Amino acid sequence: MAFTLDELVSRFGGVVIGDGTCRITGLAPLDQAGPLQLSFLANPKYLSQVETTGAAAVLITAAELEKIDSRDGRCFLVTANPYAYFARVAQLFLSLAQPAEPCGVHPTAVIDPSAVIAASASIGAHVVIEAGAVIGERVRLDAQVFIGRQVKLAEDVHLYPRVTVYHGCTIGARVMIHSGAVIGADGFGFAPDFTRDGGEWVKIPQVGTVRIGADVDIGANTTVDRGAMADTVIEEGVKIDNQVQIGHNCRIGAYTVIAGCTGIAGSTTVGRHCIIGGAVGIGGHLTLADRITVAGKSSVTKSLTKAGVYSGTFPAIESADWNRNAALMRNLDKMRARLKKIETQLETELEAALNPPR
Amino acid sequence: MAFTLDELVSRFGGVVIGDGTCRITGLAPLDQAGPLQLSFLANPKYLSQVETTGAAAVLITAAELEKIDSRDGRCFLVTANPYAYFARVAQLFLSLAQPAEPCGVHPTAVIDPSAVIAASASIGAHVVIEAGAVIGERVRLDAQVFIGRQVKLAEDVHLYPRVTVYHGCTIGARVMIHSGAVIGADGFGFAPDFTRDGGEWVKIPQVGTVRIGADVDIGANTTVDRGAMADTVIEEGVKIDNQVQIGHNCRIGAYTVIAGCTGIAGSTTVGRHCIIGGAVGIGGHLTLADRITVAGKSSVTKSLTKAGVYSGTFPAIESADWNRNAALMRNLDKMRARLKKIETQLETELEAALNPPR
Amino acid sequence: MAFTLDELVSRFGGVVIGDGTCRITGLAPLDQAGPLQLSFLANPKYLSQVETTGAAAVLITAAELEKIDSRDGRCFLVTANPYAYFARVAQLFLSLAQPAEPCGVHPTAVIDPSAVIAASASIGAHVVIEAGAVIGERVRLDAQVFIGRQVKLAEDVHLYPRVTVYHGCTIGARVMIHSGAVIGADGFGFAPDFTRDGGEWVKIPQVGTVRIGADVDIGANTTVDRGAMADTVIEEGVKIDNQVQIGHNCRIGAYTVIAGCTGIAGSTTVGRHCIIGGAVGIGGHLTLADRITVAGKSSVTKSLTKAGVYSGTFPAIESADWNRNAALMRNLDKMRARLKKIETQLETELEAALNPPR
Repeated sequence: MAFTLDELVSRFGGVVIGDGTCRITGLAPLDQAGPLQLSFLANPKYLSQVETTGAAAVLITAAELEKIDSRDGRCFLVTANPYAYFARVAQLFLSLAQPAEPCGVHPTAVIDPSAVIAASASIGAHVVIEAGAVIGERVRLDAQVFIGRQVKLAEDVHLYPRVTVYHGCTIGARVMIHSGAVIGADGFGFAPDFTRDGGEWVKIPQVGTVRIGADVDIGANTTVDRGAMADTVIEEGVKIDNQVQIGHNCRIGAYTVIAGCTGIAGSTTVGRHCIIGGAVGIGGHLTLADRITVAGKSSVTKSLTKAGVYSGTFPAIESADWNRNAALMRNLDKMRARLKKIETQLETELEAALNPPR
Repeated sequence: MAFTLDELVSRFGGVVIGDGTCRITGLAPLDQAGPLQLSFLANPKYLSQVETTGAAAVLITAAELEKIDSRDGRCFLVTANPYAYFARVAQLFLSLAQPAEPCGVHPTAVIDPSAVIAASASIGAHVVIEAGAVIGERVRLDAQVFIGRQVKLAEDVHLYPRVTVYHGCTIGARVMIHSGAVIGADGFGFAPDFTRDGGEWVKIPQVGTVRIGADVDIGANTTVDRGAMADTVIEEGVKIDNQVQIGHNCRIGAYTVIAGCTGIAGSTTVGRHCIIGGAVGIGGHLTLADRITVAGKSSVTKSLTKAGVYSGTFPAIESADWNRNAALMRNLDKMRARLKKIETQLETELEAALNPPR
Repeated sequence: MAFTLDELVSRFGGVVIGDGTCRITGLAPLDQAGPLQLSFLANPKYLSQVETTGAAAVLITAAELEKIDSRDGRCFLVTANPYAYFARVAQLFLSLAQPAEPCGVHPTAVIDPSAVIAASASIGAHVVIEAGAVIGERVRLDAQVFIGRQVKLAEDVHLYPRVTVYHGCTIGARVMIHSGAVIGADGFGFAPDFTRDGGEWVKIPQVGTVRIGADVDIGANTTVDRGAMADTVIEEGVKIDNQVQIGHNCRIGAYTVIAGCTGIAGSTTVGRHCIIGGAVGIGGHLTLADRITVAGKSSVTKSLTKAGVYSGTFPAIESADWNRNAALMRNLDKMRARLKKIETQLETELEAALNPPR
């Protein structure tokens, strides 16, 4: 399987500098690429590698290409975004290398007769699909996936093995969800009733669903809870990493990215084009504006109304240093009191010293 | 499906103010409810909405009802705890709206002949039940659940799809566990043996189990490890959110609530009626007293012996502000040294200035 | 099932002090052990219990044995590492108590004809094994496990129910992986392309795999992502707890231990013999040297090049105290400014006071 640079340009755009018939059979980083491989310059700090790479051709911006002294023999594919171009070419090669999933339903799958399944869909071994579910064109459900009643999957959805989608949830086109993710489990809502003897937490039925827009990716073992009365919404183009928890009634704005191990409590709205770092905790009933970045491990306890970068975590340092300073931090009020005392002293006593009674 | 207010009172108590034959077909928030819906006032700040709501009737406390000026045409259902009452009515409507699970065992389930399964239980597709397990009355095991040997499930347990319960664990009545949760995996225990060449971590066999009391709820992808020699115990009425990790030999006291992404290391005891926020980390071998609240994202590294609210996390702020102050924090010892120096200076030099040598 | 002390010594080494024909039927802690049980002294603070225990024999070091005044009637099994010895004996008893898994493939398992499965392997109910997978001798796959195409499992691997291993990953001998873990899901890599209208995150195909060395343990619901172009590597003897996330292209050095809920972002290398506490967050593209310990809940945002103990987290304290000091911390720069002002004042004004103009 090979493509010429001209063929790539006809699919993905860009301009060839050099021989457009140059053949490409794969991709590799600059320092590892061989004479049939395409490489890319995504980070200017690797510019010098462009002059020494063994690659057949290099994806590069026009601005960076200007800086190359010695182009001898090398081909370039000039594009505004070499990294995205690289990703698209890599997808092309991968799609050709992977075995095609056969259409149809594996004999061990258990499908309710009222479910509607497109003929082009591929339903794997031991999959379970409940009543009234609708499975779109070219959907791929890997082994052991569970689809609850009335779930709707748009075209080209791919659920990896052992994904669970609870009843009533809807998933947009081209969504990809990795193994072990759970979409639509009950939100965490209980009414306390401890006034009388015994008492109990009374469960609030969670009768909303989860609605996931097109082109969303969701990582392995991530959980997105269904809404209590309204729906939990993940807008189009959102990318969510592994082990993330999204509480009931949240709304995650389009194209926002959420890194692994982050938790977002219920009824919080995150804006569009946000970047939420790993292991961040965001409290409930908050609103984050568009284009907010939160540094990894931070806690968000108030709404953030202004685009920008937010953080609130200390990097780990040697324990002895940390412990000494952490103990002082817990007594900052005492340091402030000492400071205040000195200031008062300076105002009164120094005054007296400077203006001695005559 | 509809109930009159009088019928609700006969099920759940309370007092009707207005027409007891008023019919209710569902529930909604005050600002969204229509003329066949029941609403509720759980938070006094929405009091004004009670006068404008389109709801057929409103759940309210006697004290709040006193504050309503214009009751014209509206019905009220007076109760000490409107939110819990709402939850119970919502459960009633939900139970009637859901399709009944058929009793019996799906033909694709794999059941060891020595397992005992109540006739009223519902066992879903691709469920696996191993030797000696006992499944109580009206238990519902959704698709792809795994039940290890000698597991005991009391009556009315509901395990959602893809829950794993390891061998020997026992689960109390009415427990609900969401998809992907794992009960009874091995605790994390290894004896280091690196004294000789090579060396290894020697696994400590985990021969305890997990015992879960009645009316416990456990969220999606949560893990509760089995004990090493004794058992891990979750007492009755505990509510655990998604993605929580509970280590071996822990005991979680009755009615305690644990929010998502929290981790509790091994051999820790959490008291009754505690509220543990999201993404909290609690160290091993600690004891938390009854009625302790821990703010989200906090670290608990020492036992907490007194009821109360504990916290230890900074809210994220703009990064530039954070970084400036965080750098100072790591050098608090230097600030303290400067303070000390000033204090000394003031004591000696100022003294000299005030009492100049004659 | 019983062993004499002499029989244990012939299996595991050590020296008997007392009657070598003394029979042992199980293990227990010092304060609970009865006359047929073996106990152990792993922590010197329990030394006094050795004199009062009801155990038939006690595992102990020679140095601790010296401190025992009254040995009357008690047997001792002297070893350099009583805890590791205890673990090995416990494994022996457990292996005999557990029912043997039958060899062979459960009739409900779905196995691609091109997969190669050792005759001594045990393949459970509803397992799925895809094309080209190789399953080694005595491998045990519990119910509902998923094995992707071209996966290779070495001898004596044990995957608990509902483990997923994506295509192409390799797993070393004696590896044990607990329920719900996902090995080899796609790493989190996207190229932003928002220069034009609309725009999108372009997925970087993840074409590396995961390679796991021998004797690794992985906990329930843990996720290890496959590499982007190269592989993610877990070296031999690594022990990983539950709910851990390991990003693409990471390398975890041999014998390192990672506690629950920790997340390690992509392309980070952790050294050998490290101890990473629970709920730690480690940033991407970092290097941690060998023998580094990171305290639970800490954030690692820079490479750590020196062996040692690192931390960076505050223990939770009473909220009122915390909030007062945390507010000051966010204004440390103001405190520093006040300090600076005082220092200047002291330098100039005090100078003036001490040396009044004549």
